[in-house]
Amino acid sequence: MATINKNFTKLATGYLFPEIAKRTKAFLAQNPGVEILRLGIGNTTEPLTPTVIQGLRRGVEKLASGDTYTGYGDEQGDMRLRGAIAGVYRERGASIDPSEVFVSDGAKPDSANIQSIFGAENVVAVQDPAYPVYVDTNVAAGRSGGYDQQKGLYRDFVYMPCNEANGFFPDLPAEKVDLIYLCSPNNPTGAVANKDQLRTFVRYARRTKTVILFDAAYSAFIKDAQLPRSIYEIEGAQECAIEINSFSKSVGFTGVRLGWTIVPKALLTEDAESGQVHALWNRRQCTFFNGASNIAQEGGIAALSEQGREECQKLVDYYMGNARVIREGLAAMGLTAYGGANAPYIWLKTVNAMTSWDFFDKLLRETHVVGTPGAGFGPSGEGYVRLSAFGHRAMVEKAVESIRKNFRA
Amino acid sequence: MATINKNFTKLATGYLFPEIAKRTKAFLAQNPGVEILRLGIGNTTEPLTPTVIQGLRRGVEKLASGDTYTGYGDEQGDMRLRGAIAGVYRERGASIDPSEVFVSDGAKPDSANIQSIFGAENVVAVQDPAYPVYVDTNVAAGRSGGYDQQKGLYRDFVYMPCNEANGFFPDLPAEKVDLIYLCSPNNPTGAVANKDQLRTFVRYARRTKTVILFDAAYSAFIKDAQLPRSIYEIEGAQECAIEINSFSKSVGFTGVRLGWTIVPKALLTEDAESGQVHALWNRRQCTFFNGASNIAQEGGIAALSEQGREECQKLVDYYMGNARVIREGLAAMGLTAYGGANAPYIWLKTVNAMTSWDFFDKLLRETHVVGTPGAGFGPSGEGYVRLSAFGHRAMVEKAVESIRKNFRA
Repeated sequence: MATINKNFTKLATGYLFPEIAKRTKAFLAQNPGVEILRLGIGNTTEPLTPTVIQGLRRGVEKLASGDTYTGYGDEQGDMRLRGAIAGVYRERGASIDPSEVFVSDGAKPDSANIQSIFGAENVVAVQDPAYPVYVDTNVAAGRSGGYDQQKGLYRDFVYMPCNEANGFFPDLPAEKVDLIYLCSPNNPTGAVANKDQLRTFVRYARRTKTVILFDAAYSAFIKDAQLPRSIYEIEGAQECAIEINSFSKSVGFTGVRLGWTIVPKALLTEDAESGQVHALWNRRQCTFFNGASNIAQEGGIAALSEQGREECQKLVDYYMGNARVIREGLAAMGLTAYGGANAPYIWLKTVNAMTSWDFFDKLLRETHVVGTPGAGFGPSGEGYVRLSAFGHRAMVEKAVESIRKNFRA
Repeated sequence: MATINKNFTKLATGYLFPEIAKRTKAFLAQNPGVEILRLGIGNTTEPLTPTVIQGLRRGVEKLASGDTYTGYGDEQGDMRLRGAIAGVYRERGASIDPSEVFVSDGAKPDSANIQSIFGAENVVAVQDPAYPVYVDTNVAAGRSGGYDQQKGLYRDFVYMPCNEANGFFPDLPAEKVDLIYLCSPNNPTGAVANKDQLRTFVRYARRTKTVILFDAAYSAFIKDAQLPRSIYEIEGAQECAIEINSFSKSVGFTGVRLGWTIVPKALLTEDAESGQVHALWNRRQCTFFNGASNIAQEGGIAALSEQGREECQKLVDYYMGNARVIREGLAAMGLTAYGGANAPYIWLKTVNAMTSWDFFDKLLRETHVVGTPGAGFGPSGEGYVRLSAFGHRAMVEKAVESIRKNFRA
């Protein structure tokens, strides 16, 4: 008699984005013909750059000929790509060996699966608000006693509030924790940790043998040269941090699927010596995964070429131009918003102490703009809506203009 | 203080294929210049067909233009592809709704992850021998007490022997079990279940509310029209079976990464009503996965077009031609071998009661042919080596000829 994994039933609601899609669809059904202005999901909209397209074409054409066809690749990824990624870290002063780079089909699966190599007894700390995948996957893995409806959070997790008072970067947890998820540039707040802030967490993690799971998926959007793009720019981070990154937003591979995770050989836990956690993730990937698409990997190699990087920088600049339009537009209306300077997300404060779902509905109804309710990212997200800078410029400008004209404060 | 998932440390050895690669590499280091004849891993070697290449090109070119670019797709897959897959089932008399088709990055990840939606207390039954992923992922998920070195198996799993006596298809388990992995055409034995055999398991599963996890990754290799290509050809199977399949072997997508899993809405467990398990896998995929590559999916759609299917059938025929060369070659030498008639694997019995790793070493040393030791697939695989029909015809012929000339019986 088979039984289901009851931990899944502890998950509070459907995943955030399907719920947004549902409400938007319902609004459209009631208001046919209305143009929806989507600043909700962080989904790329601009075509891939010529060099990346060339790489993908090369990937396809290789499969058309018996001389160049390849089947299964290494589960850890193509060594050329692993080497190129390690090279980018070297430029930032971080010495990562290509064997410490695990290529994957994206940062979301890696963020979701990384918890599986740690014990069920580990206490998880998350930034609040945070990308829902960190929390949801730990609930599914049985690390939570369930959802506390009243508090709007999952039991047994440590939520580290990120708010106006602390500049949207958390203080060290007061309780004993074992795994800490950090995301910088942050999704959803758009805040970026500086070196001192990361140093504080690295020092804490090394002292307490806590592991930091560092999501750097938006690192390409950092313009300020003083801000760290990788946690490995901090001394000692290789002993305590795993870093996850992605080609999705910086190259436009949201649909192509390519990312990577760094598990340093120096990483330590209470019960694992140097090399063991690295070997564990390797075993996990070899058993549960079969490598990223060889076509996508050819595209990734092209994206990391000199020409590819120049082109992709322009793509990033384009989206950051959108971010500026949103940020400056909202400021001119007297609305309070954060982020958007070194990150593609703007964290818009609701008006009149509205809840974020109410504000979401109001924004949709009055301005036809779709945002993402902050409460979907955790209790401290209440009172905010996330606006995404991913979109065509014309649509973004229209959205800001629609807010200016139609929003009733 | 972070701790690791101790269940991973219960895994007996490195994953089978890396171990084979290691031994082969060591042999090559000692015998430089020797041509290794690889019948080990089931890795495709022939180029993709023209129609599939056209599909992949279309996938790439769509991303080059702002008018056709797409980012995130649905986690469940492109509806055109889901519809085409459902269409193939319809031809076989199985009514599968497109919403029951979950497109993925391959049968291996799906085979690995499917267990995660079931409770940790579920007792797992596997065919013995079996594809190691079923067992390894359940060990990692904590369903085994560890490896029993003496018996060569994992504690708490039910091994269903497949041997000469039962024609390599198992009897119903005598013990109470909750999840049953079945693979047909079988990897590694090459045996194919007939309808009566599947009917027996479906009847048992419905009566006991057991769930069958049916791996049909090699179904395209079935030539005999009387043999079922899907478990859903058996009445009532939708109430008790999940089916996993792949574009890897039939289309040549081992490196491109594309597969699918059917979770029927009618599926029941002890504690889940109709629709609930389907919803659970949907939630799992939306939380841990972000969809298969859009380029790969365009290739998959092309592969399922009329022209694509005709071409891919020729690809399958090519590998099955290899299988015949191996099967008939071994028979002519008086060696005992099974499979290879409706499956791309040949299950070669060792001589003089040798162990399969000893036989692997002997085959490598004397003939330079790499097989896969049967013991790597479970205790009942002891005394066999799996030979794969995936390879260039010339290499396969050379391998058979080398065995004929150099093997000392």
